[in-house]
Amino acid sequence: MPEYPTAIGTSTVDTISLLGHDLAGELLGQISFGELAYWLATQRRPTPGQLRVFEAVLVSLADHGFTPTAIAARLTYYSAPDSLQGAIAAGLLGGGSRFLGVTEDTGKYLHDIVLTLGDTDAWTAAQWDAAARDALTATRAAGGKIPGLGHPVHKNGDPRTPVIIRIAEESGVKGPHLELFEAVGRVHPEVLGRTLPLNGAGVAGAALADAGLPIDLLRGFALLARTAGLIGHLAEERQNPIGPAVYAEVDRNAVYTPPAG
Amino acid sequence: MPEYPTAIGTSTVDTISLLGHDLAGELLGQISFGELAYWLATQRRPTPGQLRVFEAVLVSLADHGFTPTAIAARLTYYSAPDSLQGAIAAGLLGGGSRFLGVTEDTGKYLHDIVLTLGDTDAWTAAQWDAAARDALTATRAAGGKIPGLGHPVHKNGDPRTPVIIRIAEESGVKGPHLELFEAVGRVHPEVLGRTLPLNGAGVAGAALADAGLPIDLLRGFALLARTAGLIGHLAEERQNPIGPAVYAEVDRNAVYTPPAG
Amino acid sequence: MPEYPTAIGTSTVDTISLLGHDLAGELLGQISFGELAYWLATQRRPTPGQLRVFEAVLVSLADHGFTPTAIAARLTYYSAPDSLQGAIAAGLLGGGSRFLGVTEDTGKYLHDIVLTLGDTDAWTAAQWDAAARDALTATRAAGGKIPGLGHPVHKNGDPRTPVIIRIAEESGVKGPHLELFEAVGRVHPEVLGRTLPLNGAGVAGAALADAGLPIDLLRGFALLARTAGLIGHLAEERQNPIGPAVYAEVDRNAVYTPPAG
Amino acid sequence: MPEYPTAIGTSTVDTISLLGHDLAGELLGQISFGELAYWLATQRRPTPGQLRVFEAVLVSLADHGFTPTAIAARLTYYSAPDSLQGAIAAGLLGGGSRFLGVTEDTGKYLHDIVLTLGDTDAWTAAQWDAAARDALTATRAAGGKIPGLGHPVHKNGDPRTPVIIRIAEESGVKGPHLELFEAVGRVHPEVLGRTLPLNGAGVAGAALADAGLPIDLLRGFALLARTAGLIGHLAEERQNPIGPAVYAEVDRNAVYTPPAG
Repeated sequence: MPEYPTAIGTSTVDTISLLGHDLAGELLGQISFGELAYWLATQRRPTPGQLRVFEAVLVSLADHGFTPTAIAARLTYYSAPDSLQGAIAAGLLGGGSRFLGVTEDTGKYLHDIVLTLGDTDAWTAAQWDAAARDALTATRAAGGKIPGLGHPVHKNGDPRTPVIIRIAEESGVKGPHLELFEAVGRVHPEVLGRTLPLNGAGVAGAALADAGLPIDLLRGFALLARTAGLIGHLAEERQNPIGPAVYAEVDRNAVYTPPAG
Repeated sequence: MPEYPTAIGTSTVDTISLLGHDLAGELLGQISFGELAYWLATQRRPTPGQLRVFEAVLVSLADHGFTPTAIAARLTYYSAPDSLQGAIAAGLLGGGSRFLGVTEDTGKYLHDIVLTLGDTDAWTAAQWDAAARDALTATRAAGGKIPGLGHPVHKNGDPRTPVIIRIAEESGVKGPHLELFEAVGRVHPEVLGRTLPLNGAGVAGAALADAGLPIDLLRGFALLARTAGLIGHLAEERQNPIGPAVYAEVDRNAVYTPPAG
Repeated sequence: MPEYPTAIGTSTVDTISLLGHDLAGELLGQISFGELAYWLATQRRPTPGQLRVFEAVLVSLADHGFTPTAIAARLTYYSAPDSLQGAIAAGLLGGGSRFLGVTEDTGKYLHDIVLTLGDTDAWTAAQWDAAARDALTATRAAGGKIPGLGHPVHKNGDPRTPVIIRIAEESGVKGPHLELFEAVGRVHPEVLGRTLPLNGAGVAGAALADAGLPIDLLRGFALLARTAGLIGHLAEERQNPIGPAVYAEVDRNAVYTPPAG
Repeated sequence: MPEYPTAIGTSTVDTISLLGHDLAGELLGQISFGELAYWLATQRRPTPGQLRVFEAVLVSLADHGFTPTAIAARLTYYSAPDSLQGAIAAGLLGGGSRFLGVTEDTGKYLHDIVLTLGDTDAWTAAQWDAAARDALTATRAAGGKIPGLGHPVHKNGDPRTPVIIRIAEESGVKGPHLELFEAVGRVHPEVLGRTLPLNGAGVAGAALADAGLPIDLLRGFALLARTAGLIGHLAEERQNPIGPAVYAEVDRNAVYTPPAG
């Protein structure tokens, strides 16, 4: 007889237990949704500082206006208004490598380097810069891509980046991932020959890593944040839809080209 | 030239604006993720009381252990570990009529009745009971279903229900939907001939309605809450998987039956 | 110990059985994919006539150019090119009530009427017209919608409709659903006061019903057909993408409107 | 003003054109659904031999009994029976690296080698064996995985493999991918030190490649085939459900383990 282990939840006729706590008596009204999300993902309750950074990062990732995924969710809702879950799912399915993946890619990139650095507790900025310089040079020599740099709109600097770093500092959560990310920001012009901003998706990955979230699931937090954004888009689509106009625009400007084969 | 209106977000080279506020300067670190989710869905900032109820309801809905949707998400992750977004989407796609839909169905059911009641500000419990009695009797006469009643496990009472109601009271948010839901709890035995608990999904719908969330999107908040739960399940699946055992169990106990046709 | 019954497939170390037949020895290379799809859905092998109609209907439903679902799939692929399954799933999730649902809605609408008609084998066109007149009048009196009528582009007649009907006739598969649908086409101007074409999605539903496919799953065949169309769109998106242009167009023409609340 | 090019479809008030042909006059009833799927994916009409192989491969991939993806689709349908498209989408989302990905991985693996071989038209089996031996040795030296080998059940040989190869031969479609795959089957015991069967997912990838399907979309054809299988599972789930039993089994055998953190 197979057994299915879990630490998440269990219930009896009179109680519901979540993460080893009584849901009704100990959690409802006493922790925020963000705190529960952190706790579920790590099976560890966040410190107040970790929670502050986590909530700030979720807020920073929730929406980006008319992204391809927001448009896809709106078009899906227009086609199938009977299935809100389908429209949200369609929006999340765009959470892949090109856009939402940057958070995870940056967190992983930094983490792989941090793992090689030994004890960095007393490091100076110059030491971080040296480590960043080595890493970027190696990445570039191998033909790799450095995630978290550059932004199509915020070319002079992403306004989220310094604020997330400051919040992490104030919260006592700033650690090696953010230190290294800042160093990447300082030294990359030497290595790449041009200056790019540290983008908001990248700083989110670094901050989540320093706040103790699992590196392999960083994309999941971008998806959680985006779920709130998608609900906002779908609420607005109900009131003030763009789906029909997008469809009409594409359909009307379709240009038939002969098949390739 | 079509225009695509939105109140959600806009950005310039130096700023990101969300809901008419400067994201970096006014929101990051200053509002919780729950507050942003409320604000995005309604384009209205919650009062502290509304926010407290909203966060409590999200916490109450986030997880229910090995639900069919959690199992589906885990099996999907087992099959396609390269696509976390696919596993989360698969889990959300079960957010339909049978399980997650109860929140929305209850909110709508109560709301349709509330709309017919006129000014209920000074109503007594007896007046709510009379209104509930009329509504349940009419629903039953029409062969309809009364949502929010009954639970497969918590047969003596769902432990979440009184806590959510108390939090709404303390927060000054308890309104006609919860009043009517409580009245349904008191009078349904007369109408149905048996006593059922007010379930947690139902009280969530009533509380969200009283907290000012849009009735037509209540399912969306169940889905948002469940996204956090699904991330918890997938984090655990990485460490301590059940997907292979579920698959093996079903496959090994498959019994071939001849085709019907 | 639970058992999980299925008639679909079973395998041993040396054989794979599908629908009670040896996959390698009896099916591969001997039946078309369309035949297998019919067989899987009904657990009954189609007659040659049923199969001809089924394949023709699938061909008729496979693509409709830049539909909202095709655009959503392309945008999803642009965002997450690493997950083809996610892009196809996003495209299918738009297969709801507004567009793809017409096939199922028409099949069900006709079927519910057919069930009330008794033995119609020897009916004349006049008898079908009378039945259609009664049904449309009753639907309209109840405020209901008549599915399968009207098309935004093919206002003078949908070119697929007569061809599907002819194929069903030639194949000996034309039955009460198509007879009734044709009668709807003849009598609706009397009832509605205007003349609308019988659309291709509607005739697909009627033809699938006459070909013996299960009424409750008609939407599934529209989804199967559309999967082939979506693969075509994604193949083209790889070569000649429109996703970036759609995104740029919407983003550039976004107009910020103040939040409602 | 942006333009959106496409060769797939276009329509006027009186006509629907698909791939440059009149849908109603030239395609409906005259090509099979499989032929249309090939044509849409490649924008090239298949030869009769290519079509025969393509349809056979789709048949071979359509179903595998109670796979994790079939179980996930059934659980999703149980949770949300109002959204067939959601259940199918959930099933397809498991079409990732672990199970359905083998078809694509094998096709790509073989194709990358074939591209290096020059003109192989007149090659003997010994030449193919030498090429395979070199490739496998190199893959193994680099720590890579050889896709298409081994099967958890069909340990003595996958019954689909020789039949697909024979159909390709008979159809004049057998080319370098299948030749190389057969050579892998002959020489891998020397390189790996053990003998594994050439599996059905792998031969499907090789055959699709030889049949002219685009290598980068091979996963798409596995997904198309699986859509038919999923419709079969969901049709059966309506009649003879396993979802409730799977849920009950997992839920009842859940074992609570303390949180890690």
